[in-house]
Amino acid sequence: MQYVLYGDKIVEREHASIDLEDRGYNFGDGIYEVVYIYGGKPFSMEEHFKRFADSAAKLEMKLPYTLETVNDLTVKLIEANKIHNGIVYIQMTRGASPRNHLYDRDSACLITGFARKMDPPVQAQENGIKTYLTEDIRWLRCDIKTLNLLGNTMAKRKAADHGCHEALQHREGTCTEGSSSNLFIIKKGTLYTHPATNLILNGITRQHILKIANEQGIDIAEEAFSTRDLIHADEVFLSSTTMEIAPVIAVTGDEEGEFPIGPVTRLLQKKLKEKIKKPTVLK
Amino acid sequence: MQYVLYGDKIVEREHASIDLEDRGYNFGDGIYEVVYIYGGKPFSMEEHFKRFADSAAKLEMKLPYTLETVNDLTVKLIEANKIHNGIVYIQMTRGASPRNHLYDRDSACLITGFARKMDPPVQAQENGIKTYLTEDIRWLRCDIKTLNLLGNTMAKRKAADHGCHEALQHREGTCTEGSSSNLFIIKKGTLYTHPATNLILNGITRQHILKIANEQGIDIAEEAFSTRDLIHADEVFLSSTTMEIAPVIAVTGDEEGEFPIGPVTRLLQKKLKEKIKKPTVLK
Repeated sequence: MQYVLYGDKIVEREHASIDLEDRGYNFGDGIYEVVYIYGGKPFSMEEHFKRFADSAAKLEMKLPYTLETVNDLTVKLIEANKIHNGIVYIQMTRGASPRNHLYDRDSACLITGFARKMDPPVQAQENGIKTYLTEDIRWLRCDIKTLNLLGNTMAKRKAADHGCHEALQHREGTCTEGSSSNLFIIKKGTLYTHPATNLILNGITRQHILKIANEQGIDIAEEAFSTRDLIHADEVFLSSTTMEIAPVIAVTGDEEGEFPIGPVTRLLQKKLKEKIKKPTVLK
Repeated sequence: MQYVLYGDKIVEREHASIDLEDRGYNFGDGIYEVVYIYGGKPFSMEEHFKRFADSAAKLEMKLPYTLETVNDLTVKLIEANKIHNGIVYIQMTRGASPRNHLYDRDSACLITGFARKMDPPVQAQENGIKTYLTEDIRWLRCDIKTLNLLGNTMAKRKAADHGCHEALQHREGTCTEGSSSNLFIIKKGTLYTHPATNLILNGITRQHILKIANEQGIDIAEEAFSTRDLIHADEVFLSSTTMEIAPVIAVTGDEEGEFPIGPVTRLLQKKLKEKIKKPTVLK
């Protein structure tokens, strides 16, 4: 039996029914978060729900109840589904109303969610992944974690069609991020990643990595870098909630290159795993 | 009683239930069309469903049945709801599957739809509308009529907040289109509109207008124009399925200007209304 979150209730999956004029369904008008569960415990859930609230504010959506309640319901959802290792997915849409581009700031938003068993991608973490470099065709508010994800899904499809695990995106030669991950390179000991502007999603794992790098005395440059810089990097890796840190061993597509799995990547992987075992709140 | 289209059936509204892992709900992974119904008859439905098929092809979605069947079901939907004047809205998503950015080209897509009474916006057509000029923040595939509409809804909200009926969008000073309409200007007798590239949706009404203008011997330039050109235009109007042709009488926001409702706009309005009364298939 699968249980899902529907509004403020945990219900059997078949009892969760979305209206065909839910604004999530007609406009992608909504936001989401994915939290990883390690040994039954969600990691960095507080940070995820803080970002959830930030996304809601940016889209002028009102949370139907407090973040604490969202948190409590999410815990119940995890427990109901007996998830040991896996993910919990929570989304909020602007709810159902007669279809109209113009949204109402006071709409009754609908929160739904599901949890699923999933083992950490150990092979990707150990052996690295191949990536496909392609144009970033997304909108100019990638800082909001919204349901408007077609640009991301199209990039991911392209990557898979070229035998790659993930897409890397660039805007006219400037690297932004993966289709569902943040991109880092290491050059001469400095860790580079795109600054947290409107062009990328400021990943929770990205934030953990920057904090760890700082603690480890690694030079950090939150600066945009080019596809040429990418190709000439010493090490390349991606981060996300579900992958943690995945070394990039190859790039194909708009540029081509191969990379070793280097010591900085391995150090950050190790320290992130330690943090996951002994979680502390960011900042 | 409201009836809706759900798959290949016309059902009572409460019997249409969308899965909370429908890709339309999680990714905005889908397409749509809106057709206007005049006196019980849908206008240009064939052109709308041809574009529906084009959008599906661009997103690599498979229609679950033929366009003829979509057409027949839409007619049934209109009849079931006894729509005399109004709209019919048809959308297709990639259906329900365990959430994953990577889509499957063979997914069982789901078509849903509803119909609604709506009178033509006579006042907007007669007296014109005020518009708000703002940055176009959307993705680079606006040629596909997808459910990823947050950029559009945010622009519409901004316009309404400034007392305007519609938003006009520009990319770094080049006008593209409205939030749910195409933009035309007239300067020294020539009709200008953005070419049908990846940056705009090639509206069915837009296509009718270009055909009518050609028949009327009006010079046509499908060329991008700047926000300065917009402000210095002799006439400005917007087109869409629901508005037909709405004269623009004012622009505020990133530039400001006022416009008379001119003879070219009035001629095109008149000829479009004639075409609606005696429909012919485009091209």
